[in-house]
Amino acid sequence: MTESELDGLLVTAEANVEYLSGFVTQFAWNTPSRPWYVLLPRDGDAVAVIPEIGESNWRATSWVEDVRTWPSPRPENEGLDLLADAIKAVPRRSGLMGFELGPETRLGMPVADLLRLREMIRPFLMVDGSAVLRALRLIKSEAEIGRIRHVCQIASDAFEALPEMARPGDSEREVVRRFQAELILRGADKTPYCAIGSGPGGYDSIIQGPTDRRLAAGDIFLIDTGARWGGYFCDFDRNVAVGPPSDTARRMHALLWAATEAGIAAARPGNTAADVFSAQAKVLEDAGIALGNVGRFGHGLGKLMTEPPSNKPEDTTALVPGVVLTIEPSAMYGAGRIMAHEEDLVVRADGPELLSRRAPREMPVTVG
Amino acid sequence: MTESELDGLLVTAEANVEYLSGFVTQFAWNTPSRPWYVLLPRDGDAVAVIPEIGESNWRATSWVEDVRTWPSPRPENEGLDLLADAIKAVPRRSGLMGFELGPETRLGMPVADLLRLREMIRPFLMVDGSAVLRALRLIKSEAEIGRIRHVCQIASDAFEALPEMARPGDSEREVVRRFQAELILRGADKTPYCAIGSGPGGYDSIIQGPTDRRLAAGDIFLIDTGARWGGYFCDFDRNVAVGPPSDTARRMHALLWAATEAGIAAARPGNTAADVFSAQAKVLEDAGIALGNVGRFGHGLGKLMTEPPSNKPEDTTALVPGVVLTIEPSAMYGAGRIMAHEEDLVVRADGPELLSRRAPREMPVTVG
Repeated sequence: MTESELDGLLVTAEANVEYLSGFVTQFAWNTPSRPWYVLLPRDGDAVAVIPEIGESNWRATSWVEDVRTWPSPRPENEGLDLLADAIKAVPRRSGLMGFELGPETRLGMPVADLLRLREMIRPFLMVDGSAVLRALRLIKSEAEIGRIRHVCQIASDAFEALPEMARPGDSEREVVRRFQAELILRGADKTPYCAIGSGPGGYDSIIQGPTDRRLAAGDIFLIDTGARWGGYFCDFDRNVAVGPPSDTARRMHALLWAATEAGIAAARPGNTAADVFSAQAKVLEDAGIALGNVGRFGHGLGKLMTEPPSNKPEDTTALVPGVVLTIEPSAMYGAGRIMAHEEDLVVRADGPELLSRRAPREMPVTVG
Repeated sequence: MTESELDGLLVTAEANVEYLSGFVTQFAWNTPSRPWYVLLPRDGDAVAVIPEIGESNWRATSWVEDVRTWPSPRPENEGLDLLADAIKAVPRRSGLMGFELGPETRLGMPVADLLRLREMIRPFLMVDGSAVLRALRLIKSEAEIGRIRHVCQIASDAFEALPEMARPGDSEREVVRRFQAELILRGADKTPYCAIGSGPGGYDSIIQGPTDRRLAAGDIFLIDTGARWGGYFCDFDRNVAVGPPSDTARRMHALLWAATEAGIAAARPGNTAADVFSAQAKVLEDAGIALGNVGRFGHGLGKLMTEPPSNKPEDTTALVPGVVLTIEPSAMYGAGRIMAHEEDLVVRADGPELLSRRAPREMPVTVG
């Protein structure tokens, strides 16, 4: 904040409120009826301005002790007066107050209320404070890495059991239900993202299912999961063959496995997100394979399933110890087919540390 | 839109994009890296401006056929030029373009991009269009009611099995894991909200758990769940006694059951959300019981777990056929204890139709 000349930061989005306050809740983010605000001044203690219903939950989980409440929902004034008072009491140096306005942010309050607040806090000026949050959240602490590793291990266990959960005749929906229940019973808090693609010899979308489509011998399917534990995500996928895979599918899997190896090896200090992309792309291009149409080959991971940076040619974010990344090459083949592969890792001073358990080089085959 | 003199509506939030387009995805809303836009002109066809990665998913699920894509993520221009072109091509009468700015809305794009777009679309003026969306979404179609009923029935089945899932010595986390897995295996797509409160003779929060606290004989616990199926939520709760409940807990449960009956009976055309509150409150007040500190006694339900209206004295929203409500009285007792009770219903021309299966009048007791 000092570098950015901000006198304070006001956050409203789930990940930022949790990150700055430690507040743990399932309630707040499942309802837009009530906003939750955390004000972090450059000088002085943080202030929570929250709905009355959440006070005991807040005090049980957050280290922010200055808690101010109002009886919400009250659409005509959702705590704006309390919030403006708190902001105007912040020591003023630059007069700049940071808000979540910039790239890859979402605001946790109505825009009309934000614009009203902008007038209420004058002479403070509302500016974009998202770069400060981005820089903070890019580098994970050991506690954060531990949580991501934990949920990656839960998902690794569930993925190892996956070949036993799918048989010819099962629908995509049934397989995803079993897999989500497995994740939860093994310890995941939530399974917000659990996509499946399937088809004879391969699938054509990695983000769409589950549908009512039924698996058949000769199918390849992919499950990609963003499961959550302790406020942090894993995000990786696995391919499974229903019966012995074709030579083409085996070759694609081997190439993507190798591209992932190259991406993992490139995830080290001194390199950029673009370098991690290039290392993966080179393996596929050298084999004459078209790159997947996903827009990037992995991304940051943490309190959200996708965070900056993006592993793509234009993103020159420097990798430093504590950056957590997904390595996610994808390739096109056959008639509109795509295959993806993904692992999660943390950049360490001496190189990458895998957080997910490395996929087998050979594609697993369903059991029974 | 004609009444509001809007030339068009631009939506970005999950519920509104789904509502206007039919788009079904797990992907889009789990990552703030990429925004998704739907433009609905007053005259002419809707336009989807979406990330390239989502085109096949979009075409497989949405009735909006005019789809324009860009390679996202591209933080410097997340489809804004495409979007501005689409907006400027809308036939101009009033010159007013509606956006999601008002009460209980959340924007599905960065605010800085919205402010930039505001300049790019001139001479169109950006105004709040949320009242149009609110009015549309308040009254559910039979298809919507069917989906809410379906997920309510799944949760009713899971709640009936709940007394068998909890034993003295189990932690709140274990019980919630089993309950969430049960919901998923019985057909729920997701379990975004699954809170538990427990304590000897009663609990003190209805929104907080699960924690590591272990159940003991003499406890009362409550699970409240917002489970999701087909893009729609249920939201109701059940109380369970670990071993025979105390007379106090039984009396509170009976009173809340009666207050819920009164709330259900009041949910009919001609009444308001405030009337539904008053009917519930009267039962508790007549018994000399303090009302719960939740801020309201139920709310709208649909694509979100909480929607307008709020059953509270200040909300005079008229109940008309097709309004889906939760009836949710809560009461304080003992030393800071709260007890809640909740059902889901739809207002019909001739009165309420329950969507959840009515809770038993007597509190269920754990088995074994």
